[in-house]
Amino acid sequence: MTSSNLRINLERLLGRIEVLAEVGPIEGNGVCRMALSDEDRQGRDLVIGWMHDLGLDVRIDRIGNVIGLRAGAEPGNPVLTGSHIDTVATGGRYDGNLGVLAGLEVIETLNDAGLTTRRPVGVGFFTNEEGARFAPDMMGSAVHQGAEAVEDMLRVVGVDGQSVGEELSRIGYAGEAPTGEFRAHCFVELHIEQGPILEIEEFEIGAVEGVQGISWNEYQLSGTSNHAGTTPMRLRHDAGYVAAAISVEARRIANDMGENQIGTVGVTDLNPGLINVIAKEALVTVDLRNTDEQKLQLAERSMREFIARTCEAEGVAVESRTLARFEPVTFDKDMVSLVASTAAELGYKVKTMPSGAGHDAQMFAPNCPTSMIFVPSRGGISHNVAEYTEPEHIRAGADVLLQVLLQKTE
Amino acid sequence: MTSSNLRINLERLLGRIEVLAEVGPIEGNGVCRMALSDEDRQGRDLVIGWMHDLGLDVRIDRIGNVIGLRAGAEPGNPVLTGSHIDTVATGGRYDGNLGVLAGLEVIETLNDAGLTTRRPVGVGFFTNEEGARFAPDMMGSAVHQGAEAVEDMLRVVGVDGQSVGEELSRIGYAGEAPTGEFRAHCFVELHIEQGPILEIEEFEIGAVEGVQGISWNEYQLSGTSNHAGTTPMRLRHDAGYVAAAISVEARRIANDMGENQIGTVGVTDLNPGLINVIAKEALVTVDLRNTDEQKLQLAERSMREFIARTCEAEGVAVESRTLARFEPVTFDKDMVSLVASTAAELGYKVKTMPSGAGHDAQMFAPNCPTSMIFVPSRGGISHNVAEYTEPEHIRAGADVLLQVLLQKTE
Repeated sequence: MTSSNLRINLERLLGRIEVLAEVGPIEGNGVCRMALSDEDRQGRDLVIGWMHDLGLDVRIDRIGNVIGLRAGAEPGNPVLTGSHIDTVATGGRYDGNLGVLAGLEVIETLNDAGLTTRRPVGVGFFTNEEGARFAPDMMGSAVHQGAEAVEDMLRVVGVDGQSVGEELSRIGYAGEAPTGEFRAHCFVELHIEQGPILEIEEFEIGAVEGVQGISWNEYQLSGTSNHAGTTPMRLRHDAGYVAAAISVEARRIANDMGENQIGTVGVTDLNPGLINVIAKEALVTVDLRNTDEQKLQLAERSMREFIARTCEAEGVAVESRTLARFEPVTFDKDMVSLVASTAAELGYKVKTMPSGAGHDAQMFAPNCPTSMIFVPSRGGISHNVAEYTEPEHIRAGADVLLQVLLQKTE
Repeated sequence: MTSSNLRINLERLLGRIEVLAEVGPIEGNGVCRMALSDEDRQGRDLVIGWMHDLGLDVRIDRIGNVIGLRAGAEPGNPVLTGSHIDTVATGGRYDGNLGVLAGLEVIETLNDAGLTTRRPVGVGFFTNEEGARFAPDMMGSAVHQGAEAVEDMLRVVGVDGQSVGEELSRIGYAGEAPTGEFRAHCFVELHIEQGPILEIEEFEIGAVEGVQGISWNEYQLSGTSNHAGTTPMRLRHDAGYVAAAISVEARRIANDMGENQIGTVGVTDLNPGLINVIAKEALVTVDLRNTDEQKLQLAERSMREFIARTCEAEGVAVESRTLARFEPVTFDKDMVSLVASTAAELGYKVKTMPSGAGHDAQMFAPNCPTSMIFVPSRGGISHNVAEYTEPEHIRAGADVLLQVLLQKTE
């Protein structure tokens, strides 16, 4: 049997997913395992136990990242996979966890086959990917790859007033390994899509070519409250109208710029919010995303100019505030091709696509060849107890992960 | 001295406005004198005292309308003026009160001049014009002119659980006169504009040609909540986008149809209302008004078709509910011309215009020649303690009222 015929054991992988999901269970088959909580500690203990069972050399660094290493025939930086096991407050069973446990399943498959790879292989889980308790998100992988300083992150205070450093100590995960003690030879992360595209377009695997850039802005519009019956249209300073026009413009920009430009207005709060009163104030948010930084800047500029023009015409004042701004991340072309070709060789229908959400992988991208493997999310639902991925799709993703890792360890 | 040289006494009129405003005073020079409250009783007592002082024959009908009649040289239906003295919860000093007290000032001017008109003259104030405590608004004038049955209105229960009939009895204003015991020969009402047009266009008098029709609809939109980063534009069912498009369309309809078409969206509530979540639900209201019933129906139809089309394209469900629908009222052309020509002869700049709000006069319009005289509202502000009309504009309005009434009593 050659290594290209190796396949993971689906039942074993589903079993681990099931067991980990019972740490911090919530109604509706969901999970609440917020970063550095007691549940996170229990989850960490469980996964580390499995790592030890598999014979991995487990390293815990100062920010609590856990990496289990399997030696190769030769020394050197490991081929790394992994993800996270923290969840949002009402999370599902697959987000993050799938990538970590599929990594362990790959290790066990290699062990069962008695196969020693040329390069070392590692499986990691990174602290506080979700950012639901402590900001920023992707904290552990950011520290591991040098994008954030460990001392700064240890001082971060969460929504409940506890600091990352205190909570790491409290749960016993303030490790001794220096953060980023080694670079990965390459990094590949298996993750659920968290969107509907694979399901709707009937693909089984996504070869992720990068992560969208994100631009979040909030606009506080100030007009004049007045009687909706007695104020002629030409004399209005209607903050609600401007808010609505911004929302429609976000849609227009996205439609005109094409598939990779996304525009969403999720907040439109009008004051006073009465049927027969022209709105004096409106709070509106604009979420723009693109995989291309130049195009994202173009979308931002279009929106900015539209808002300035519309506010001036309406006689409405505007104050803007940037809530978040991340540049897009582009994954290594060869790594993306490898994921795509491997999936195709295994007989899966594969789509090369960007990620709409942030992932640990993007922190590795500047430092080593990186890509991700997406599997479908039923109904595109994630960050929700109803999150679900079909077993056959889990099998597909884990087998692609195994074969990609095998090729990179050669 | 001919009657066309007669002028009202501004100080005396301002004095009565001042005294009545001290019944139910609230902070900021405002007034709270809700219909059939203790304050309303005190205000009624005060105004009726003045009516008696002026020698008027005071009649109180079963719905609490009060009309003071001044005999003419000949019998017959009176030339009638008047308005209301009830206010909204945070009302001003002029809305309604000005028309009633200017009517008394006209009477006193006639008395001082020793002038007996050919026809009788009457000054009335009508119960519950505002509708702030009991629905519908314009209740007293509606009953007086036969648009509502008195027994039905007496049974109406207000926002505080008391009925109109009980409250009329409690405050001693369940009168004995049959409602509508006489028709008016004609009706003319002086009122503040409650809008900004006269002030901004620098007119002193508005000759009111009618009252806008009103169409209020509420739309509950139901789409699908989803991740703003991972859901492609073409797969969205964004209730917030549809709500915004409705608001922009209301503006377009109004702009395209021209000056007399008004369109306002004052409510846009999105659920869940988060920056990175596509809105699952949106509640949106549409307020359409026009002075022409056919055009109002056209605007309603345009909006209805737009909403159906947009919801279908977006895959968003909609439930609609009509909250109010009143047909426009057209005032008598000759009466409107008389107001305009009288104001011009007195040297005032006059604009012929519709009313954006409802008034007692509209209840008289089907039964006798009717019009209204508008005077400017500073900043267009009304239903607000900051409501204000310049003394010289009050003089202008009351003098026009005097001269219109004199011409109609000939």
